[in-house]
Amino acid sequence: VLERLWRSLSLDRAGTIVALGGGTATDLAGFAAATYLRGVPWIAVPTTVVGQVDAAIGGKTAIDLPTGKNLIGAFHWPVMTVIDPLLLDTLDDIELLNGAGEIVKTGLLMGERIWELPLHEQVRRCAAFKSGICVRDPHERTGVRAQLNLGHTFGHALEAAAGYTALPHGRAVALGLLAAVRLSIRHYGLDAAIEHDIERTLRPEPVRVDPDRAWEALGRDKKAVAGSPRLVLLEALGRPVTGVELPASEVRAELERLIAK
Amino acid sequence: VLERLWRSLSLDRAGTIVALGGGTATDLAGFAAATYLRGVPWIAVPTTVVGQVDAAIGGKTAIDLPTGKNLIGAFHWPVMTVIDPLLLDTLDDIELLNGAGEIVKTGLLMGERIWELPLHEQVRRCAAFKSGICVRDPHERTGVRAQLNLGHTFGHALEAAAGYTALPHGRAVALGLLAAVRLSIRHYGLDAAIEHDIERTLRPEPVRVDPDRAWEALGRDKKAVAGSPRLVLLEALGRPVTGVELPASEVRAELERLIAK
Repeated sequence: VLERLWRSLSLDRAGTIVALGGGTATDLAGFAAATYLRGVPWIAVPTTVVGQVDAAIGGKTAIDLPTGKNLIGAFHWPVMTVIDPLLLDTLDDIELLNGAGEIVKTGLLMGERIWELPLHEQVRRCAAFKSGICVRDPHERTGVRAQLNLGHTFGHALEAAAGYTALPHGRAVALGLLAAVRLSIRHYGLDAAIEHDIERTLRPEPVRVDPDRAWEALGRDKKAVAGSPRLVLLEALGRPVTGVELPASEVRAELERLIAK
Repeated sequence: VLERLWRSLSLDRAGTIVALGGGTATDLAGFAAATYLRGVPWIAVPTTVVGQVDAAIGGKTAIDLPTGKNLIGAFHWPVMTVIDPLLLDTLDDIELLNGAGEIVKTGLLMGERIWELPLHEQVRRCAAFKSGICVRDPHERTGVRAQLNLGHTFGHALEAAAGYTALPHGRAVALGLLAAVRLSIRHYGLDAAIEHDIERTLRPEPVRVDPDRAWEALGRDKKAVAGSPRLVLLEALGRPVTGVELPASEVRAELERLIAK
């Protein structure tokens, strides 16, 4: 799709690309904008919850490879991200549940149960929180963004094992949050009620993928060091810890709890 | 080739890509480095004259599209460019003549007849001159680099019309320099002896391409504004003028003088 987009573009450097769609569309169009003529401006108009609270904020653009999610990409901030609450009224329940994963993630990082607020207010707070983190580190050089990866290390591995199309990002994040919260309860004494909150709000369901494939994908994570994943956990609600390395056997056991037998 | 490279890479962010080859290889590998994991370090080891004096210096990476040269790319400076004079001893006469185009271009911009020096000294001076220009404007935002396009607007159009593979970059630049110098003699009174210097040193030969295709490619040049190319000309040896717009009929006539009937 990227190659088709590249070939069909006919802009000079004064042109601007407008991306209207979900996270895949804005990530793709943003990457095309990053690389066409070595970079033209772009505007993101995300139409999904995931897009409005996460994908279209922070300047990251990317496409997937068969070997892993977001492996090809660029930092290329949109000149504007348009978040229109009316677009949320066009989404069905599956899409809203898909978006709830990123909202709960952000609430856990903020230390507020924002998932109990009206949807438009959830979106507003999440977009503001992520923007605030990302503008402090626009090209991800200081490590301040690493907390945003909460639930994503396991989530990305499941998506890769599912071949991406079979498992929506938000569902993968819901499962990833469950694993991160379970490890946080065990290692940091995080309030065990949060595990139940996640189960009630996100209703994560174990996914049918090959466990070996998921485990291999975990070792290829962009933040991995020498094949060993670095996790984001929670010391408490609103207190993330980044760069956590745990024994491979324990990480693998948590991963396998997310996979249907 | 880019997609094959992307799929075969297996690096984490601490990895470095080393590109050994001519300008096409270093441009491609540099672009892969720019986009893999949203950017990993790379080292350029150019093995051709064009690579050593031009392609591997300045942080530009790119690939071509069927519709135009270098249309997809990124600014991604190598952490190091290794210029080994011994590699020049491996090149045949065709490759050396190919490289002479960029050397003469640089001499015209510097205002020195560097093409009369020993080859290793030509390369050293050209690499130093281009580095000096590019570090003043690492992401091409101020216009100081525009002079480096001398001879390239016509050259790129001929390459696109030839489908890239049939016409080496250096030969296209030699023809492009001829057109730029002819226009400079007519409009700015540039010393007419320089046209003879170019003919003697570079022996440019009209190329067999479709004139309409070349003309269309000229209008798609990255520096074109609303389909009208912006040229680099010379007021005098060492005094480039950038952003020159001339009547389309005159530009087209000069382009056609470079094309074999």
